[in-house]
Amino acid sequence: MTVSVAVAGASGYAGGEVLRLLLGHPDVEIGALTAGSNAGERLGALQPHLLPLADRVLVDTTIETLSGHDVVFLGLPHGQSAAIAQALGDDTVVVDCGADFRLTDPGEWTAFYGGAHAGSWPYGLPELPGQRELLRGAKRIAVPGCYPTVSTLAIVPAIAAGLVEPDVTVVAASGTSGAGKAAKPHLLGSEVMGNASAYGVGGTHRHTPEIVQNLSAVHGAPVQVGFTPLLVPMARGILATVQAPLRDGVDLGGVRDAYASAYDPEPFVHLLPEGQWPQTQSVLGSNAVQVQVAVDERVRRLVAVAVVDNLAKGTAGAAVQCMNLALGLDEATGLSTIGLAP
Amino acid sequence: MTVSVAVAGASGYAGGEVLRLLLGHPDVEIGALTAGSNAGERLGALQPHLLPLADRVLVDTTIETLSGHDVVFLGLPHGQSAAIAQALGDDTVVVDCGADFRLTDPGEWTAFYGGAHAGSWPYGLPELPGQRELLRGAKRIAVPGCYPTVSTLAIVPAIAAGLVEPDVTVVAASGTSGAGKAAKPHLLGSEVMGNASAYGVGGTHRHTPEIVQNLSAVHGAPVQVGFTPLLVPMARGILATVQAPLRDGVDLGGVRDAYASAYDPEPFVHLLPEGQWPQTQSVLGSNAVQVQVAVDERVRRLVAVAVVDNLAKGTAGAAVQCMNLALGLDEATGLSTIGLAP
Amino acid sequence: MTVSVAVAGASGYAGGEVLRLLLGHPDVEIGALTAGSNAGERLGALQPHLLPLADRVLVDTTIETLSGHDVVFLGLPHGQSAAIAQALGDDTVVVDCGADFRLTDPGEWTAFYGGAHAGSWPYGLPELPGQRELLRGAKRIAVPGCYPTVSTLAIVPAIAAGLVEPDVTVVAASGTSGAGKAAKPHLLGSEVMGNASAYGVGGTHRHTPEIVQNLSAVHGAPVQVGFTPLLVPMARGILATVQAPLRDGVDLGGVRDAYASAYDPEPFVHLLPEGQWPQTQSVLGSNAVQVQVAVDERVRRLVAVAVVDNLAKGTAGAAVQCMNLALGLDEATGLSTIGLAP
Amino acid sequence: MTVSVAVAGASGYAGGEVLRLLLGHPDVEIGALTAGSNAGERLGALQPHLLPLADRVLVDTTIETLSGHDVVFLGLPHGQSAAIAQALGDDTVVVDCGADFRLTDPGEWTAFYGGAHAGSWPYGLPELPGQRELLRGAKRIAVPGCYPTVSTLAIVPAIAAGLVEPDVTVVAASGTSGAGKAAKPHLLGSEVMGNASAYGVGGTHRHTPEIVQNLSAVHGAPVQVGFTPLLVPMARGILATVQAPLRDGVDLGGVRDAYASAYDPEPFVHLLPEGQWPQTQSVLGSNAVQVQVAVDERVRRLVAVAVVDNLAKGTAGAAVQCMNLALGLDEATGLSTIGLAP
Repeated sequence: MTVSVAVAGASGYAGGEVLRLLLGHPDVEIGALTAGSNAGERLGALQPHLLPLADRVLVDTTIETLSGHDVVFLGLPHGQSAAIAQALGDDTVVVDCGADFRLTDPGEWTAFYGGAHAGSWPYGLPELPGQRELLRGAKRIAVPGCYPTVSTLAIVPAIAAGLVEPDVTVVAASGTSGAGKAAKPHLLGSEVMGNASAYGVGGTHRHTPEIVQNLSAVHGAPVQVGFTPLLVPMARGILATVQAPLRDGVDLGGVRDAYASAYDPEPFVHLLPEGQWPQTQSVLGSNAVQVQVAVDERVRRLVAVAVVDNLAKGTAGAAVQCMNLALGLDEATGLSTIGLAP
Repeated sequence: MTVSVAVAGASGYAGGEVLRLLLGHPDVEIGALTAGSNAGERLGALQPHLLPLADRVLVDTTIETLSGHDVVFLGLPHGQSAAIAQALGDDTVVVDCGADFRLTDPGEWTAFYGGAHAGSWPYGLPELPGQRELLRGAKRIAVPGCYPTVSTLAIVPAIAAGLVEPDVTVVAASGTSGAGKAAKPHLLGSEVMGNASAYGVGGTHRHTPEIVQNLSAVHGAPVQVGFTPLLVPMARGILATVQAPLRDGVDLGGVRDAYASAYDPEPFVHLLPEGQWPQTQSVLGSNAVQVQVAVDERVRRLVAVAVVDNLAKGTAGAAVQCMNLALGLDEATGLSTIGLAP
Repeated sequence: MTVSVAVAGASGYAGGEVLRLLLGHPDVEIGALTAGSNAGERLGALQPHLLPLADRVLVDTTIETLSGHDVVFLGLPHGQSAAIAQALGDDTVVVDCGADFRLTDPGEWTAFYGGAHAGSWPYGLPELPGQRELLRGAKRIAVPGCYPTVSTLAIVPAIAAGLVEPDVTVVAASGTSGAGKAAKPHLLGSEVMGNASAYGVGGTHRHTPEIVQNLSAVHGAPVQVGFTPLLVPMARGILATVQAPLRDGVDLGGVRDAYASAYDPEPFVHLLPEGQWPQTQSVLGSNAVQVQVAVDERVRRLVAVAVVDNLAKGTAGAAVQCMNLALGLDEATGLSTIGLAP
Repeated sequence: MTVSVAVAGASGYAGGEVLRLLLGHPDVEIGALTAGSNAGERLGALQPHLLPLADRVLVDTTIETLSGHDVVFLGLPHGQSAAIAQALGDDTVVVDCGADFRLTDPGEWTAFYGGAHAGSWPYGLPELPGQRELLRGAKRIAVPGCYPTVSTLAIVPAIAAGLVEPDVTVVAASGTSGAGKAAKPHLLGSEVMGNASAYGVGGTHRHTPEIVQNLSAVHGAPVQVGFTPLLVPMARGILATVQAPLRDGVDLGGVRDAYASAYDPEPFVHLLPEGQWPQTQSVLGSNAVQVQVAVDERVRRLVAVAVVDNLAKGTAGAAVQCMNLALGLDEATGLSTIGLAP
């Protein structure tokens, strides 16, 4: 089976990473590559690392250019996905790397994004309990945000097993590519190299309600989440430190058992052996998540640390993984657990 | 008045930074520069950024080479300071950049450092309530650790004003120079560039009891501290995210008032205007600490973020600031609040 | 004597670095700070590392705001300096960090910058033979480009002493701040971290004719210069590798003698001892240039390597050094040879 | 066909990269992984990015552990390859990532490496004219050094076509991984971040004679090479700027024709379209070399710029490419021209 795929937003970071992965996918034929202001340019001028596609020319993002493919990946600014998805029709698998269809609660959408809620699609985090089944054969998929992916996976086994109180604190250090390719002064190399900063402090980052949604669904009741994102001087990768108060009687052995039960069957989430701590370099370019846990007995808190490549498993890798599920392919096709290091 | 100063450990990062600052201090004459295995070498070969001292030759770290100075800075491995300080006599001001005399509780010392407790000296964080007076005229000073400096200053006004519960969570992202100049594989440039990692997770980092000690002293009762250090790809700087549950009725206005009261009189700690968040680049090479606070209403938590240059205010700058106090000089002599950016 | 100083372009990198240095200058009072689109903002929001000036408000760059100061520094886009300088009158010392008045040859100006040549001002590289005298008491000064400063100083002693053929090859690796603070996609942190690139290859970079002008003036005849700039992942610093064929009979001893003669009297240019090679970290924030030379006997070529901080001695430091000369102050006032490392 | 492969030096950077590539090679079964002081450890503790091999245990590097494989890759310190290769016998394909067998001239070996010359093996740069045929079916292969690979490929079409004088100047900026994983103070992250430096200046770097050997072989007469390596703040990648005087009458069109003729048939070397310049990020993790050329008419010099991933095509990728040729496989099996960016 060969599947024809179009990528909308092919000149951006999410679109580029989708293409990088699709070039290694045995069942895919890459069709239309679309862009906004970059339409008309050679892909080689904008994504010079994608040599096999260097001579492809970007076309405008329209219904016409995107139609006629089996799968369409959307890497577009907020608010543009709904109209396109509707026009493409139900035969097309649409995988949205943007935020438009991630949240189920219209109030949360409006509070964090403003404007009207477009709706919600099956949420593309197969490692959530019960979620994989919802993605098999799905025609519409909302790829999770990068912070929610790594933050959720860091703590969800403990929530699911009832080991911690539903009071979660996330501090996540991210590389700069999560902020996209649009030029802004504070994202200049001169500004970010040798520099660490905090932003969206106080629970204002748009990924906050998404983490709440994931953890609350698993907990079966509201989970309180405090989320603080940091920007650190690297292009890719997120390291999330996720903490929650331990319930009485829970010890490290019990925690490790819960994580092992949850993740041993998973192809992409890996609990590290005791004594080894995650580092983002290990997952660069890979679809793997590496997780480690500690119990801080002095404060009776679980401290979980997880790493992800924000562009790979954090965006484009998840998108491809979900496409595989949607198409009935092996979930890991075209994806890898091998990072590029050093 | 000209003060003669010796620096033990002049080939290391702490010693080098002490020298960088002393070169700009109007009242200081730089005397003996000592080292361990680097004794006999030109300083220019080891600290090529200190051009005015390039032709100085390092001598062995001994009582003889350090004697006869008004002030001696110690940048030595753990356990070496006590014997030297004792031999130097009470006329010499000894400023220890190491950990030996920071902790007051022998049990905590043994739990985190192992071996016998050497004792405790006046703790060199003048911004702690009441602490400045203890440092004026002192003959022995224990310079705080870099993480405790920034973590303590981030939250202490809220603790002192009773705005938060005594249950503090610190996640602090540090540059690599805090790990020193001894060559270890995991600190190689190839390993740290493009990489973020966690270490000392679960409350095992040696700076944990020092933060507890500071906050508990201010609170007048034990404060619980969970501390997670991160290593991020930059040479200098720490950004600390410090959180604690807000007490009922506390709002952002009250928090800002407490911080303003605490820090408006301070020469080196600066509460940023609302809407501006700290970044480490702003304090590189400077003795300033920049702080910002937010209230996360969803989780009713105070989120304070502070930045420091781990080598400057985090080590050597604090050492010079304390020397100034010890000698009765203006506290800010030779120090700056201006960072090197970009 | 206290000199009043205005800075036009205070929100940019050159302007910010001028201010950083002026804050440490004992004879200067900082007056108007002007900007283009950033006028009306607090300086603290744009240059958060300049804490003592944080509450200053930027005003529009006009004749009115700049008038009435003893010295005006210009950090403006190309083409704006002439009109301002003319309006300010001859009593004001005008130090231009831009390119408008660097080149003496109108043909070269037009070839590399386009448009009409504004003229030429005394060229602010005091270390060029005979140049210092032209700067003492000058009312107009053109600060050299960053690449020409380091490239010229790397090779000029060999040119002046007739040790090499007038056929010079420069390859210079620069940090990103030389490209300024205007947001462009290829200067994003995500693009420059972990990345080295070449640009302006084939002699097209605008700094090429400036290097030619400097070396030809010293040689007394045209010197051929091939210049290739590289962008490497750091915010500050340039390392220039400058090569030329050795004349017969010249050996390393002769080369070192020529460099020592040229630079031993200089306050800011330092020939390193044999065996030690320059690194940019050593000169960060400093006005020093560190130089080393080698003779490659196999190819009979001189290989000189020099480092500079592009924003300091490469721009703002030179500007302050020239102001000192213009005002009859000690040339080194407010400047340092001490770098910020690591 | 499945080929059994052993890797000696599996805990180092070259060995790790060989394994990363072999994990994606369809015809390979990974056998013994050997190490020196790291023998006995889990690979996961040393190469945490190679998740599928995490539970493999490193064994000692001995004839016994390496015997019985079809292919053995050697990533060992200088001087250790000869004895191992001799003991393994002629049935085993031995691919040496080290330098022992690269140079054909014993005098050059002794001059640059010291000690006795071990001999020479077929040189693993298939893109050299005529070289590919020597590698098909070979049982011993010497993988080129990383600098020689990129420097040679940048200029060899111009040498082969007689477009330039045999007088070549190379300045190459490298990431730090080329220096290996052994901990040395000058390679610490704190030292290399924000820092550019030169080393081996004056033609003393050991890769110099290898570049001379390559170019002279193509030229049919000695080619003079001046080589200057730079260290810049990134983990991977080399950008080489290679220059030579143009012969009379040669213009850019002729140069581009020569490069296109040489590289259009090559699977891994790519001449960029006019106006686009190479950047190392484009080839990270890939076996591609991207090349661009300019003619500097003012100095009548060819300026060629090429990029390579020093660990991939610069070492391990070349090793796998050569293994493919040695075994009669498609040369590109398991290799990619797609980089990891941003």
